[in-house]
Amino acid sequence: MAKPPTVEDVARAAGVSRQTVSNVINTPGIVRAETRERVQRAIAELAYRPHAAARRLRTRRSSTIGIHLDPYSGGISGVILDRFVHALTERASERGMRVLIYSARSADEEIERLGGLVDGAEIDAVVVTGTFFGDPRTGWLLERDVPFVSFGRPWGGGDVQRSAHTWVDVDGASGTRAATRHAIATAGPRVGFFGWPAGSGTGDDRERGWRDAMAEAGADGPRFEAVDGLAHARDVMTAAFAEPDVLRNLDALVCVSDSHAVGAHLAAADAGRRSLPVIGFDNTPVAEALGISSIEQSPELVAAAVLDLLMGTTGHAVTPRDRESAPQHVLVEPRLIVR
Amino acid sequence: MAKPPTVEDVARAAGVSRQTVSNVINTPGIVRAETRERVQRAIAELAYRPHAAARRLRTRRSSTIGIHLDPYSGGISGVILDRFVHALTERASERGMRVLIYSARSADEEIERLGGLVDGAEIDAVVVTGTFFGDPRTGWLLERDVPFVSFGRPWGGGDVQRSAHTWVDVDGASGTRAATRHAIATAGPRVGFFGWPAGSGTGDDRERGWRDAMAEAGADGPRFEAVDGLAHARDVMTAAFAEPDVLRNLDALVCVSDSHAVGAHLAAADAGRRSLPVIGFDNTPVAEALGISSIEQSPELVAAAVLDLLMGTTGHAVTPRDRESAPQHVLVEPRLIVR
Repeated sequence: MAKPPTVEDVARAAGVSRQTVSNVINTPGIVRAETRERVQRAIAELAYRPHAAARRLRTRRSSTIGIHLDPYSGGISGVILDRFVHALTERASERGMRVLIYSARSADEEIERLGGLVDGAEIDAVVVTGTFFGDPRTGWLLERDVPFVSFGRPWGGGDVQRSAHTWVDVDGASGTRAATRHAIATAGPRVGFFGWPAGSGTGDDRERGWRDAMAEAGADGPRFEAVDGLAHARDVMTAAFAEPDVLRNLDALVCVSDSHAVGAHLAAADAGRRSLPVIGFDNTPVAEALGISSIEQSPELVAAAVLDLLMGTTGHAVTPRDRESAPQHVLVEPRLIVR
Repeated sequence: MAKPPTVEDVARAAGVSRQTVSNVINTPGIVRAETRERVQRAIAELAYRPHAAARRLRTRRSSTIGIHLDPYSGGISGVILDRFVHALTERASERGMRVLIYSARSADEEIERLGGLVDGAEIDAVVVTGTFFGDPRTGWLLERDVPFVSFGRPWGGGDVQRSAHTWVDVDGASGTRAATRHAIATAGPRVGFFGWPAGSGTGDDRERGWRDAMAEAGADGPRFEAVDGLAHARDVMTAAFAEPDVLRNLDALVCVSDSHAVGAHLAAADAGRRSLPVIGFDNTPVAEALGISSIEQSPELVAAAVLDLLMGTTGHAVTPRDRESAPQHVLVEPRLIVR
């Protein structure tokens, strides 16, 4: 590789020692004015830039955020996390931060990977994604006092607003509430919900929005459930619609994901009711392609909020112990995209 | 952040100077055996690991690959590049390399960004994506002698097999040839092609596969074209199918992308022929969801080939001038996924 000018080149050009050049860069106050000017002139003439690795050693900051990239799952919802990583990269760059991606197949492997990256000063901040109940990663990061923000709440631990770490999440219940209100107003009061089996934080939260809006309207509707995966969702709804009354007594269907929505849409079409209003969650390209309404999570807003909480106005990532306030939590309001 | 042991901690524990510790690590031959052993014992006891930044300064290697992440386009085909980045991250990790992602909105901005990352020794290799005719990035990387491999051929420059740099690409023509042969065998000889306007390297290559297979079978079929975007593709085919003879005389349709395939599938369904065999390109989740056959690019194989060409068996990225052989080129064979 054609090497950029080094500190030795500057030293030679200025007729001083390597140490003097280093002093001019790091502790200019201890260098005589005349020498300092000579070195600064050489730096400018050679267009010398202090080596990033040297700067990192000096400041112990790499200005690099680590983020885990899940293995590609083949589903249609991974796109949300990919959009988030895209947006984070762009926003981080505007703030002088870089993004390093790493892979790991389990939370334990991720902690091991993080240990190496943090110890080696390869990264000095982490964005955690895919938080789950009893997640060991956030406790580890707090204990090591590594600057981090999670995209996702610490599910299941009582009052999440009082959780020990800083997070940003999307207000799922608010999204399904808006979707259900819209369905009631435009299609009728018999709005069903097609969710995941109970027990997942995200899924229960989204179901709550539907229940709230139904209670508010004094309306009632059936609940269906399926684990994720479009083909399975389609099978479940095909079986449900085999009972003609089910489809006849349904004005609309609010779904926990776009996989569920697309599966339900295809099952309804097969059962002769392609026009059943179905609303998905995630606003994926598939929903857009099929003209299915969906709830947009706005991962770009999440990325902006994550960086705000991570760096504040300091210009660098702030460690948990250096934070001046209690851990902050931001719920991003999703938007209903009507098609 | 809880700091790992530093070189000063080791020096204190061993009762030597910082410089002596540094000598033991970098030039052990110049240190007296007794001192060396004392320092090595302290290193082991404290579990001291030389700082990554220090190692980078010493070796001038960051073991980090830079890759550009396009802004999220909202389309359905971006998923290929995202899958490639996922796979690259996993494979790179197995080889002790890290992946740093950066954003840029133009080739010139990308070169500027790369200049900073290379000069600062933040990255010591680059994977270039989205190559195009007259791409200024590859020339810049060759001139700076930065190790790099492109995912994508240098389109338009005569005999691409003789191009000046190392690349991996997917053999698009081979994919559409297989798709066309399959369509002829299973649906009939009147297979149409739905492509991009002529002049794009990738699009012309994919069209060539269709032409070859049609000529081979002595068959004939119509050609349609649209710029990318599902809605536009659907409009174009809806207009084409408004002429009933067009649809009646068509046995199947091979498409340049899944957007085109989904658009054509929906237009055919609207025109009363949901069963028209349509084959897309990219094997996106949308095609899978709709049961549309598609050509799978296997970005995971591309990622493996990219790392093979970048590093060979050396354990680090090889610069263009250090390569022992001429630039290498790998065409990955895509697979037809029949649904």
